[in-house]
Amino acid sequence: MKRVGIIGVSGYTGVELVKILLNHPEFELSYLAATSEGKIDEIFPQLSGVCELKVEVANAKTASLRCDLVFLALPHEKGMEFASEILSFGTTKVVDLSADYRLSLELYEKNYTTHQDKKNLASAVYGLPELHRKRIKTTNLVANPGCYPTCSILAILPFLPFLDTKFGVMIDAKSGVSGAGKSLKQTSHFVNVNENINAYSPLSHRHADEIKEQISLAKKEPISTLFVPHLVPLTRGMLVSVFGVLNEKIDELEVLREFYKDEKFVRVRNEPVQVKNVVGTNFCDIFVKKLDGKIWVNSAIDNLLRGASSQAVINANLMCGFDEGLGIPNLAYGI
Amino acid sequence: MKRVGIIGVSGYTGVELVKILLNHPEFELSYLAATSEGKIDEIFPQLSGVCELKVEVANAKTASLRCDLVFLALPHEKGMEFASEILSFGTTKVVDLSADYRLSLELYEKNYTTHQDKKNLASAVYGLPELHRKRIKTTNLVANPGCYPTCSILAILPFLPFLDTKFGVMIDAKSGVSGAGKSLKQTSHFVNVNENINAYSPLSHRHADEIKEQISLAKKEPISTLFVPHLVPLTRGMLVSVFGVLNEKIDELEVLREFYKDEKFVRVRNEPVQVKNVVGTNFCDIFVKKLDGKIWVNSAIDNLLRGASSQAVINANLMCGFDEGLGIPNLAYGI
Amino acid sequence: MKRVGIIGVSGYTGVELVKILLNHPEFELSYLAATSEGKIDEIFPQLSGVCELKVEVANAKTASLRCDLVFLALPHEKGMEFASEILSFGTTKVVDLSADYRLSLELYEKNYTTHQDKKNLASAVYGLPELHRKRIKTTNLVANPGCYPTCSILAILPFLPFLDTKFGVMIDAKSGVSGAGKSLKQTSHFVNVNENINAYSPLSHRHADEIKEQISLAKKEPISTLFVPHLVPLTRGMLVSVFGVLNEKIDELEVLREFYKDEKFVRVRNEPVQVKNVVGTNFCDIFVKKLDGKIWVNSAIDNLLRGASSQAVINANLMCGFDEGLGIPNLAYGI
Amino acid sequence: MKRVGIIGVSGYTGVELVKILLNHPEFELSYLAATSEGKIDEIFPQLSGVCELKVEVANAKTASLRCDLVFLALPHEKGMEFASEILSFGTTKVVDLSADYRLSLELYEKNYTTHQDKKNLASAVYGLPELHRKRIKTTNLVANPGCYPTCSILAILPFLPFLDTKFGVMIDAKSGVSGAGKSLKQTSHFVNVNENINAYSPLSHRHADEIKEQISLAKKEPISTLFVPHLVPLTRGMLVSVFGVLNEKIDELEVLREFYKDEKFVRVRNEPVQVKNVVGTNFCDIFVKKLDGKIWVNSAIDNLLRGASSQAVINANLMCGFDEGLGIPNLAYGI
Repeated sequence: MKRVGIIGVSGYTGVELVKILLNHPEFELSYLAATSEGKIDEIFPQLSGVCELKVEVANAKTASLRCDLVFLALPHEKGMEFASEILSFGTTKVVDLSADYRLSLELYEKNYTTHQDKKNLASAVYGLPELHRKRIKTTNLVANPGCYPTCSILAILPFLPFLDTKFGVMIDAKSGVSGAGKSLKQTSHFVNVNENINAYSPLSHRHADEIKEQISLAKKEPISTLFVPHLVPLTRGMLVSVFGVLNEKIDELEVLREFYKDEKFVRVRNEPVQVKNVVGTNFCDIFVKKLDGKIWVNSAIDNLLRGASSQAVINANLMCGFDEGLGIPNLAYGI
Repeated sequence: MKRVGIIGVSGYTGVELVKILLNHPEFELSYLAATSEGKIDEIFPQLSGVCELKVEVANAKTASLRCDLVFLALPHEKGMEFASEILSFGTTKVVDLSADYRLSLELYEKNYTTHQDKKNLASAVYGLPELHRKRIKTTNLVANPGCYPTCSILAILPFLPFLDTKFGVMIDAKSGVSGAGKSLKQTSHFVNVNENINAYSPLSHRHADEIKEQISLAKKEPISTLFVPHLVPLTRGMLVSVFGVLNEKIDELEVLREFYKDEKFVRVRNEPVQVKNVVGTNFCDIFVKKLDGKIWVNSAIDNLLRGASSQAVINANLMCGFDEGLGIPNLAYGI
Repeated sequence: MKRVGIIGVSGYTGVELVKILLNHPEFELSYLAATSEGKIDEIFPQLSGVCELKVEVANAKTASLRCDLVFLALPHEKGMEFASEILSFGTTKVVDLSADYRLSLELYEKNYTTHQDKKNLASAVYGLPELHRKRIKTTNLVANPGCYPTCSILAILPFLPFLDTKFGVMIDAKSGVSGAGKSLKQTSHFVNVNENINAYSPLSHRHADEIKEQISLAKKEPISTLFVPHLVPLTRGMLVSVFGVLNEKIDELEVLREFYKDEKFVRVRNEPVQVKNVVGTNFCDIFVKKLDGKIWVNSAIDNLLRGASSQAVINANLMCGFDEGLGIPNLAYGI
Repeated sequence: MKRVGIIGVSGYTGVELVKILLNHPEFELSYLAATSEGKIDEIFPQLSGVCELKVEVANAKTASLRCDLVFLALPHEKGMEFASEILSFGTTKVVDLSADYRLSLELYEKNYTTHQDKKNLASAVYGLPELHRKRIKTTNLVANPGCYPTCSILAILPFLPFLDTKFGVMIDAKSGVSGAGKSLKQTSHFVNVNENINAYSPLSHRHADEIKEQISLAKKEPISTLFVPHLVPLTRGMLVSVFGVLNEKIDELEVLREFYKDEKFVRVRNEPVQVKNVVGTNFCDIFVKKLDGKIWVNSAIDNLLRGASSQAVINANLMCGFDEGLGIPNLAYGI
């Protein structure tokens, strides 16, 4: 048993981590922290009678003493603040769910703020298992990918060799409202979301550069990336359309199947994917179809699980030498 | 390990049984049946990569040979048809999720149809563990309660000694649409449900007599029962208001706490209950408040789990001598 | 043409007033005011190209100079502040949508705060046309009823002569989220509302006393009132169940029909009412059924229209000597 | 006053036509027909107390005798059956909401079935006012555009001169469930739609050829068109993303504004469009943004109004010599 902690347990990804870890055979929840103290079932009354652990005021030193591995479910800036201190003690591993270690320094500072931990940024591993599994196994710091990037990159990767780079990719993404977090905003007010859909931050969302950087690195040349996210009236789930131009004839479904044939958490589908088949799980479902020398790739994930918390536990499994699927949810809520 | 089967696996309660049993440490799914054959992940694509068991055409003999216990997730009439045959072979236990063994003969025939298995009807046990735990442990046939009755009876039971019988109970219940099943009806069409609420079968729903009979038996005198169910725009979840007149002064919250103090799957709340705290679990959350010598009791369950499939597995656990909480879901979907 | 103004135009009831008044043949919008200035289509982009009136900083003097009648779409306390000043100038009528003039002094101060305009409180008319039409026609100040009271009182009135007063009424009400207003609260966050239902302020909501006072006045004796409101996942619409004990045998549907036979905006239904048939209109749909000497009355309204803005315009029509149905919306959004 | 009729009044577009025409100052509803007889408020109980017109069994002769203009709110095949007969009598105009006259013969027969009225097909006018206003004014037969084509073509038209034809357009469209009609299908069952999103008929939907044909005609060269429609959990509303490659530098927002500067029912927006601002109206809201020499155009309509019934009434206005905006809804349901 490894002792694990969660800093930032009061948000949506925090509680999802708690739920996964409560049923995990090799991880033991030994530290829960947030900005103020209390009990986890007071913050999340659904946990009453199931988990009544104390939540402490977050402290990096305590976390490193009490945990073999810490999940940081924090906003950006806070992620690097805690990660740098925890890692400085030398014994505790970190899976950071914030954006702080996902990008190169240049793109990070363009999209977020001045970086305060350049040393660890240089060595952090981008935690998309299908892309960097080997390096994840040996690192002490994983940058857990964003939800949109996870869903988009998994759709694009199999087709990178066949995509016209000059044209690049055009991504139309749709997310449930939990992706916007628990804080109060007009855009999360029920009356604004219900019976509505709209794009936001089109062609300028921070996740665009995260996608672009990862696929450009994989392809070893820059790929133009247009990214338009939408808010849709559902609590969780994410659906992505990627459009691209092919530079050669391919059997697109065969390419997809071959690419993911050994992957446990990517399911290739024979028809358009449905959010309800993945919500509650770590699966990424993918479908693809071509016309007129162009392709449309279609992927779906649970934004809070594969897009955050269950992927973080997979990274933790890999970092600790466990089977990557250990304790990972695979039964969708959908009926 | 006990071998269990499900007949009628293609409906909502069928797939929920599959999901629970896949993670159950002492039950092994050895038989899935429906009206036509196929594979379970073809009927429920969310199970792809997780469970690919064959679904066979339902046959009572086969079921009894291959299973120690069979769940019948069937409509009424079909329940008794299979139960009577399976029980006739003498070795296999049955948990029937249909309405066929829930009522006395008289009320059954008033509300449903002519009963075809009066012998087993006489000995079947009404599977509400909080009410009949002892008898469930020794029976071969459990009649799994309806969803509305489960949620209503659990709210009423603690207050039975203090309720004015002449006045009785007035129940306003709200259910998610999964309660109406998978078949196509105008009343389940998205456009009719979304941005709508309405009562249906008011004062004449079949579950009214199920509630009335159980609470009258418990109280040992007839209790007038007005029951009004509503359809609300959510997939799963059920919320109940019970109004009654008190015949003596009580500390209502204390009565409630005391009554359920040893129950693992009833949670007494300090404020109104929320459907989102129970959906995905077997919990029944209950709150109560009084005014002017009257009380309002407020309960919530997941209509497909505590109202059907997880309660059925609890009954199976009891019938097989296991701890009743073994393998029972307790982590809500809500965040 | 009468010149009308709206103070507090930036909220939900404000914009609904604008929409109704834009199509009203005898009212001309001559003054829009809120806490800060701007243009109405900047606050409500859906009005772009339709109404581009200026919104001014609210001022009672200006309102009284520019308007024959002013609608106050304000929170309590603010209502009486503006109403008292506008009425002091002597020429402008007021329809107040806040709670400030709805209750007797005693109940107002119990439920809200110290009253600052006792003089006008004494003469204000409770603006439920079916109850006080005659007095509305001659007053200068109408207290526009709350949404829950409108829907509940209209359900109860026809049965007042036949209700057991000692038992009184038990009301289970369900409201869309727009009823909670535009301000940001955890309870209006999409993730908390969607796939959820819950009661709030049970047996203690301010509208309970408003209902109780009006029906007690109508019956001329105090009537015990238990009132439990619920939040349901829809933007607008309200549904009410009233339970009561009958003190004599009646043909309940006939009583209902007879009572409302001359009313244009109450529709008696032959089956349970549906929110979707009234949203977008001023209609109150009502159905009733009895069992065991008790009745269940079932009513539905649009909480923002019959529960606020369209009822306010009906009151304005009556106060100005117009036909009460002039310009009142009667086509439901539902399909 | 012109006398107008609706054949196929029992569907969603039928009832929306009724609602618009009831408030139209120059059209009088003189004939309602469907496959069986009844009263309109029995089919649509929300019309009770508002419109109680008889619905007759559809007959082309009767329609032509009783109406100056007939709306056909019918499925394909039925549209041409009635249109050809009504037009043969020589005096009554037709607005056909089915697909029967929208496409060239070749594309019609590829996508639908054998055409039975080639003569009228040759002379029918595609009823998108912004594109064919002049011809609509003088025709006797308008083919009312599909919902997806209306929303997509209006987004594409202003940019046609600047689009790289070889690349063409990639369209990701999202529609509310009313677009799928009133008939019962698994894909319209609440449980399948709620908390879900998915594409359907990707790259093969019938509306793809309708879009492609209209924009190719306007550009006078064939334009590759990838079209992917999605079902989203809302009753009405449609949102479209169009991606394209620019062949020259443009001020994209300025191009858009200039193109639609004289259009009453297209609103150019400064930020991403929202479905809730157009639902309930005939408006098409459009926004555009460019990056890396590519553009994203973003449009929204009410699928049942601008995408069907209100656009049909605009066409009728034009055919009858009225102002095209007469009686057309412009106040959104959104708040």
